[in-house]
Amino acid sequence: MTKQTLRHDLYVVIFGTYTRAGRAFDIALIVAILLSLTVLIVHSIPSVSEQWGRQLDILEYIFTGIFTIEYMIRLYCSPKPKAYAKSFYGVVDLLSILPTYLALIFPSASFMGVIRLLRVMRIFRVLKLVRYLQDSNILLRSLLMSRRKILVFFSTVAVLVTIFGALIFVIEGPENGFTSIPQSIYWAIVTITTVGYGDLVPSTPLGKGIASITMLLGYSILAVPTGIITAELSQEMNTHRNLVKCPNCSRSGHETEALFCKHCGSELAEPDKRVVSTTSP
Amino acid sequence: MTKQTLRHDLYVVIFGTYTRAGRAFDIALIVAILLSLTVLIVHSIPSVSEQWGRQLDILEYIFTGIFTIEYMIRLYCSPKPKAYAKSFYGVVDLLSILPTYLALIFPSASFMGVIRLLRVMRIFRVLKLVRYLQDSNILLRSLLMSRRKILVFFSTVAVLVTIFGALIFVIEGPENGFTSIPQSIYWAIVTITTVGYGDLVPSTPLGKGIASITMLLGYSILAVPTGIITAELSQEMNTHRNLVKCPNCSRSGHETEALFCKHCGSELAEPDKRVVSTTSP
Amino acid sequence: MTKQTLRHDLYVVIFGTYTRAGRAFDIALIVAILLSLTVLIVHSIPSVSEQWGRQLDILEYIFTGIFTIEYMIRLYCSPKPKAYAKSFYGVVDLLSILPTYLALIFPSASFMGVIRLLRVMRIFRVLKLVRYLQDSNILLRSLLMSRRKILVFFSTVAVLVTIFGALIFVIEGPENGFTSIPQSIYWAIVTITTVGYGDLVPSTPLGKGIASITMLLGYSILAVPTGIITAELSQEMNTHRNLVKCPNCSRSGHETEALFCKHCGSELAEPDKRVVSTTSP
Amino acid sequence: MTKQTLRHDLYVVIFGTYTRAGRAFDIALIVAILLSLTVLIVHSIPSVSEQWGRQLDILEYIFTGIFTIEYMIRLYCSPKPKAYAKSFYGVVDLLSILPTYLALIFPSASFMGVIRLLRVMRIFRVLKLVRYLQDSNILLRSLLMSRRKILVFFSTVAVLVTIFGALIFVIEGPENGFTSIPQSIYWAIVTITTVGYGDLVPSTPLGKGIASITMLLGYSILAVPTGIITAELSQEMNTHRNLVKCPNCSRSGHETEALFCKHCGSELAEPDKRVVSTTSP
Repeated sequence: MTKQTLRHDLYVVIFGTYTRAGRAFDIALIVAILLSLTVLIVHSIPSVSEQWGRQLDILEYIFTGIFTIEYMIRLYCSPKPKAYAKSFYGVVDLLSILPTYLALIFPSASFMGVIRLLRVMRIFRVLKLVRYLQDSNILLRSLLMSRRKILVFFSTVAVLVTIFGALIFVIEGPENGFTSIPQSIYWAIVTITTVGYGDLVPSTPLGKGIASITMLLGYSILAVPTGIITAELSQEMNTHRNLVKCPNCSRSGHETEALFCKHCGSELAEPDKRVVSTTSP
Repeated sequence: MTKQTLRHDLYVVIFGTYTRAGRAFDIALIVAILLSLTVLIVHSIPSVSEQWGRQLDILEYIFTGIFTIEYMIRLYCSPKPKAYAKSFYGVVDLLSILPTYLALIFPSASFMGVIRLLRVMRIFRVLKLVRYLQDSNILLRSLLMSRRKILVFFSTVAVLVTIFGALIFVIEGPENGFTSIPQSIYWAIVTITTVGYGDLVPSTPLGKGIASITMLLGYSILAVPTGIITAELSQEMNTHRNLVKCPNCSRSGHETEALFCKHCGSELAEPDKRVVSTTSP
Repeated sequence: MTKQTLRHDLYVVIFGTYTRAGRAFDIALIVAILLSLTVLIVHSIPSVSEQWGRQLDILEYIFTGIFTIEYMIRLYCSPKPKAYAKSFYGVVDLLSILPTYLALIFPSASFMGVIRLLRVMRIFRVLKLVRYLQDSNILLRSLLMSRRKILVFFSTVAVLVTIFGALIFVIEGPENGFTSIPQSIYWAIVTITTVGYGDLVPSTPLGKGIASITMLLGYSILAVPTGIITAELSQEMNTHRNLVKCPNCSRSGHETEALFCKHCGSELAEPDKRVVSTTSP
Repeated sequence: MTKQTLRHDLYVVIFGTYTRAGRAFDIALIVAILLSLTVLIVHSIPSVSEQWGRQLDILEYIFTGIFTIEYMIRLYCSPKPKAYAKSFYGVVDLLSILPTYLALIFPSASFMGVIRLLRVMRIFRVLKLVRYLQDSNILLRSLLMSRRKILVFFSTVAVLVTIFGALIFVIEGPENGFTSIPQSIYWAIVTITTVGYGDLVPSTPLGKGIASITMLLGYSILAVPTGIITAELSQEMNTHRNLVKCPNCSRSGHETEALFCKHCGSELAEPDKRVVSTTSP
């Protein structure tokens, strides 16, 4: 086996998903990610960390080793290693091994905060899973297609929480816990999103009135992103339907339950067997 | 009456819903389930249990008796008793009588926790009601048809709460109540679903910023499942409409409130009596 | 003016809404209802009640007098007084004057609770406003048309909160505030609806896990009623569109922006001037 | 350059957005608004105010100066200065400079509350941003088109919270914190919008029952505004699609991603360059 073929074979297994080996590699990697996350999350519980800290550290080194080998093979077999290293997945793959090495290089004499930060940064390994979520992602496409509308929506929300935050700050004031405008804007966000922690609540009648308006506003503008996504998703699903093609005249736009082409009258394939091209035009 | 006919007659009454006797049996069973649940729920209130414990126990034995007889008759008259016993409903029917017998077999000397568990497990009797909810369930069908999208959605939520949980853990730390990553992920779920108990809230300005982003994210991704279900339901309802067929020309696509076929003008069946094939194409 | 004409004229003014006098009467009545509600609400504030109690009582008697006269005139001029008295609005009209008279009949020696109840029962006057909300109510029609689906939905929610309530009761138990199953079901409702008061929160890790599942479930089944209403409203609005008729061939189903009939090609009325029959078939 | 041309040139730069200078002016103004808001918000934090108060005051005067000059130029170059001054934007522009001058005129001897009010009123500068949010605002149009339905919806919510507020007031009473009907209506709003602060919760079993019904009601009527907005947005988006016209046969109704006319086969303009008339029919 030449070096070139080895690289290509590795590429098919590691980057591809349609061969048997490629699928097996994917599943093994997903299991490794989930196990490594479990180790990391469990390690953060004080009682567990005290008793099993040593063993969990060893497991952590093993997983870092596995992900390091994975990263190196990906760099080795990728046709454009630089492009991969700079891509979203390349950065995520690097980020998921770097913290462990940094923690080894800098001795424990450094700040406790930094150690904790490095430890927790490994959680970004969860982003390695995004690779497997993105396939056939109608959701992401809907979100991307309505990004302008969502931006306008969030700007509107930003304007609203600024105004209501300032109003409640004037009305309630520091004596009722609204110590500053940022604090009051935080309250407005907690209220308009209907989260309602209750750590900061209005106490004056006027403040309660303003709070009621904020809630009802939040309640109704919650409808806007839903409307945007739903309308977009409905269109996406209709488009999908419209991709069903007549085998005779190749025209599309047939209802899901149509049996004959509405343009030329020839029989359509049975609903379950219809070839639907999923590449969006 | 031969043994065979008895079995068949019982089958029609107990499993069927369209005969008068079958309907009466169904209603009697629903009432029995609801009463038995009421007994169980009321029994858990300390003050009631003290005063009426004896009477409630007797009622409980009566209901267990009724459900035992029901289970045995179902086993007896079912054409495939094994298949029934292994089916969802068979397991539910067994589960709703077993705890009472187990509590009788194991004397009260055993752990209090086990007794409480057995007592409460009877609540699964509520699942016997699912049998009557499933008929003509457009909702369940919509949910099932979009299960892949919902899975992708929940995976995305899982990734988000892991990241935001880890971030708040690093920023706020154990000194502010975020004692471990699982605890912080719990906070992230409480926040992203806009439940907002308020038992765990950020206290640092940076933590409040992260919390605000989590809330706004939750606020907008709440739109995604709604969009999925709505789009699916709309299609289901359109499909349903399109399946109403003209008795004369057999063409479909009639509005729900149409009285005459819009193609040939012949009268359509009355809305309530229309034959609609429910097998989706 | 004969007695008969007087009755008819009164009927047109009081029950009708299209004459100038009828409209004036409606507006006057709405103002009276809102003012009377304000008096009632303001009266319940202890500090206001102490200082202005006397004046508010007098106002209350005046409003009761007005509504009594209104009720009597309605009874007098209605063609079928009995049917009116038994109708929803008849009952509401009676309910909104009765409490004041009952409070006068039974002296203040009676229980304080009864007095408070009678006082507050006057709030049902707000239902007199429903008369003016119901006109052209596309919302109510959508809700009514999907009432079966909404019932199935609420039954499903009832099953879910029963199971999750029982689970949290077993896991957390009385020692963490979950003193009985009804209490735990209350917690499950607070959680599944994403209200999250925070007066009752899980403290054990397992309990927090169950709570997380409840929240995520609530988060996603929130989508179901939205989906139902949206799909129904969309159809309602489409039906409306489909009622636009071609002046030549009278066929409907034209797009809102269509200028020519898609069946016979004759010009349609301009969008703003189209006659759309709003009576649902 | 004549005075007239100067005025016109200024008008194009300040009110227009399509010239290079106009765009640059817009961006500079947006940056100035955001910076000025940041100064204002940061100034409200006690610790920051103590240390940097002097510098922030100077910055504030600079921004007020900038906005004063902007306001004057707008008045000068507008063809109808009076109409501008009375318009929404004219009032907002004036409101965003007035407080600073008022604070200078009235010496600090005046009430602290007034000073704080004047200081915070500057937050309305955020409304100057609305000018840039309104362009191509499909959201606002959907909201406006369904304003009647939204009004009916809010009236229904108002009726519901009044009734449930009164009910909880009678059941729980002042001894459980529900001191008056306005207070109880506030609780009903907090509950029906699923905010759930938890500062006011029912303690009696009956009160918890009423609260549960309120929550489930809120949960399901949340669906109504979503349904309204979604149905409206879907129609808006469909209308938009239907306005794309074939340059050859002028027929419309093309999918967003269509490249060729589905009626005559001639090429359509590229999606980004399509002329879409935005006047709704």
